[in-house]
Amino acid sequence: MTHLPMLLDEHDLAGALEWLETQPPYAIADEIARMDAVQSVVTFRLLDKDRALEVFEELEPVDQQEILEGLRDQAFRDLVEHMDPDDRARMLKEAPAKVAKRVLAGLSAHERQMTAALLGYPEGSVGRFMTPETVALQQELTVGQALEVVRRRGGSAETIYTLPVVDRSRRLTGIVELRELVLSEPGAMVRDLVVTAPPMARATEPAEDAARLMRETNVLDLPVVDSEDRLVGLLTSDDAFEVIEAADTEDVARQAGSEPLERHYMSASVFRLSRIRMLWLMLLLVAATLTVSVTQMYEGVLEEVTQLALFVPLLIGTGGNAGAQAATAAVRALAVGEVRTSDLLRVIWRECRTGLLLGAMLAVVGFLVGSLFVGWDVAAVVALTLIVICAWASTVGGMMPLLAKKLRIDPAVVSAPMVTTLVDATGLVIYFSTAKLVLGI
Amino acid sequence: MTHLPMLLDEHDLAGALEWLETQPPYAIADEIARMDAVQSVVTFRLLDKDRALEVFEELEPVDQQEILEGLRDQAFRDLVEHMDPDDRARMLKEAPAKVAKRVLAGLSAHERQMTAALLGYPEGSVGRFMTPETVALQQELTVGQALEVVRRRGGSAETIYTLPVVDRSRRLTGIVELRELVLSEPGAMVRDLVVTAPPMARATEPAEDAARLMRETNVLDLPVVDSEDRLVGLLTSDDAFEVIEAADTEDVARQAGSEPLERHYMSASVFRLSRIRMLWLMLLLVAATLTVSVTQMYEGVLEEVTQLALFVPLLIGTGGNAGAQAATAAVRALAVGEVRTSDLLRVIWRECRTGLLLGAMLAVVGFLVGSLFVGWDVAAVVALTLIVICAWASTVGGMMPLLAKKLRIDPAVVSAPMVTTLVDATGLVIYFSTAKLVLGI
Repeated sequence: MTHLPMLLDEHDLAGALEWLETQPPYAIADEIARMDAVQSVVTFRLLDKDRALEVFEELEPVDQQEILEGLRDQAFRDLVEHMDPDDRARMLKEAPAKVAKRVLAGLSAHERQMTAALLGYPEGSVGRFMTPETVALQQELTVGQALEVVRRRGGSAETIYTLPVVDRSRRLTGIVELRELVLSEPGAMVRDLVVTAPPMARATEPAEDAARLMRETNVLDLPVVDSEDRLVGLLTSDDAFEVIEAADTEDVARQAGSEPLERHYMSASVFRLSRIRMLWLMLLLVAATLTVSVTQMYEGVLEEVTQLALFVPLLIGTGGNAGAQAATAAVRALAVGEVRTSDLLRVIWRECRTGLLLGAMLAVVGFLVGSLFVGWDVAAVVALTLIVICAWASTVGGMMPLLAKKLRIDPAVVSAPMVTTLVDATGLVIYFSTAKLVLGI
Repeated sequence: MTHLPMLLDEHDLAGALEWLETQPPYAIADEIARMDAVQSVVTFRLLDKDRALEVFEELEPVDQQEILEGLRDQAFRDLVEHMDPDDRARMLKEAPAKVAKRVLAGLSAHERQMTAALLGYPEGSVGRFMTPETVALQQELTVGQALEVVRRRGGSAETIYTLPVVDRSRRLTGIVELRELVLSEPGAMVRDLVVTAPPMARATEPAEDAARLMRETNVLDLPVVDSEDRLVGLLTSDDAFEVIEAADTEDVARQAGSEPLERHYMSASVFRLSRIRMLWLMLLLVAATLTVSVTQMYEGVLEEVTQLALFVPLLIGTGGNAGAQAATAAVRALAVGEVRTSDLLRVIWRECRTGLLLGAMLAVVGFLVGSLFVGWDVAAVVALTLIVICAWASTVGGMMPLLAKKLRIDPAVVSAPMVTTLVDATGLVIYFSTAKLVLGI
């Protein structure tokens, strides 16, 4: 697609400069995110001042730090001074102490104060993602006066499309959309355009909840208040979008039994990739020793009918798949708010029946496949096992995420592999005891 | 959380009505989505006209149809006439013919024409999600004149915050944000405020690509043009948000080896849940017969050293987990645009090394665990196998999604279970041949 790294490797400065001038900021940011620290700083320095800021704003916090560490004081100050307070706060959160100190030192008093305020909110809370620069209105104003206020104070605000309406003590009483002001007569009263009791969020609540609320209510920006309902900021759509995308990426990673990467895939080192996957693989390996002792328990049965060994991978594999399907469906349904922990029993009942139905259908195929390799008796064992395993796996898979949420654990942590490993061991018990029963061992 | 269904079951009409009056539209829509057809129509009829429309707009297409089928003509007409053209088009796309006919018949000429136009675009394309009702400006206007145009024509538009600028033949030349107009002097020229060459999309391209572009560029609305670059509409943030959420839900489902549900989890029937999961379970079961024949191939080895059977579930389980981690990471990286198909070789190289590193660490634990149950020689086999399996699984898992994309298959379809099943069979070959080598069978 692009040749920037190549151009740099070939020291084709002219070519690189031309590429940088013709590409949009997000595309340049995309390239920089894929480079190592040195290359990205070099590239960044090739940009002229205005473009540099645009590109910088498109970068992830980690990449922003890389750049900053490679810049001289003046360029450094210009950059951090012009960042949005919420972006800056998010970057500082993860920045090494010496970078953070240098950033805060470089800021004007006003900007430093805003940043400090945002950093005061708990990690992952709305306060960390909101913009404190809003244009608040009083409802006694006329539309004409209100538009005057917007003109006077709107320049520094991140958005002027959602205008919070507050009383004398800055308590939020509602919102007015700029759209309404523009489309109304200058003489009309703001009071008559206010949306009272709009969706809002507390600065201390989790950002993901607020973002999902915006998604459900389709509001452009969400007013954010403190514990006394005083206006403290606005959560804008693009930040909400970012919050949800990050949350989903995290869920996806967790569902495959690895920690979130929190970095661009192509620029993450092999060690980092290994680190985020190691923990779970190790835990699951240890958990899997359960399957070893179960198999050992039934070694007698296996020696009696060695053919049973043939179907172990197939049976636990199928159980694992059924469990993973149910678990993933439950995790997603929880994430988008379709399922609540209070639905636990209903979910169990649904999944149990679904599993039975699936198992019954698979049993038919299982029996046919089985009789290709072994006698009908062992094949029957395989078929029966499929029914029980599927019902069991679906039930467990659907149940565990809800239980996790009840226990305030991230449901995504009850990941498909976790369910799979659990179902592996129990599945073996089901398989071998069915065998003993049917084959009368 | 809420008691609406309970209230209805108890025929507590007063209670239900009070609940409906106190809840926000999206919460009511949420409840209706969880109900069966009859209950949801009953509930919907309890709403007064204005609330009914608000709630209706929050519903998914499938639920909207349920409601419509239960309404009399007048109420029916009012609803469909007031829907946004793009929402209406999306609902009609999935509606049964008789509903669709009734809807179109109920519409005013203007609305019908707009809807027909949107339905003309391919399924899943930008055209299906954009709003055709925009306020386009000419760049010769002054800010004051432009605001006049907005006031006159903005009432019917879905958004007036992004104002496309077009030439005499409606070709898109740029955009102006309402923000700029409001903050500028009435005498200023629109020409000087235009953002030329803004991010834009063709009406026929996939909606997901356009939505991801908006996400990357942080634009509020994306202008949509036809093949001659003439303005045909705007893709608004909330629709883009919806597109990406749907795409992610689909990916998540596919990665667990099931088809997307395309319906509220709690209102989907057990049969529907089974249907979307059946296909993959069946395919994977058939694929898993490969493991049966592989095991059969090595039956001799198994009978020689029955202890080898103990570690089969653990080994293929671990291989499956490592493969799933790599596959999921690759699918997500592709989805958010961090990885491109041109990165194939780099991804293979990264994943191969990551797998080796993980395998080496797991081998240590594997050896210790192994020697708890069996002699050091078999334990050594287990350890060696872990290294090879992990490297192999990570490589395959990381590679397959990119290959799929190259072949224009949805990478998410190369789901974790698919990788797992593949790795199961090959893993067994690795295990048994290592055993033959080390134990000299």
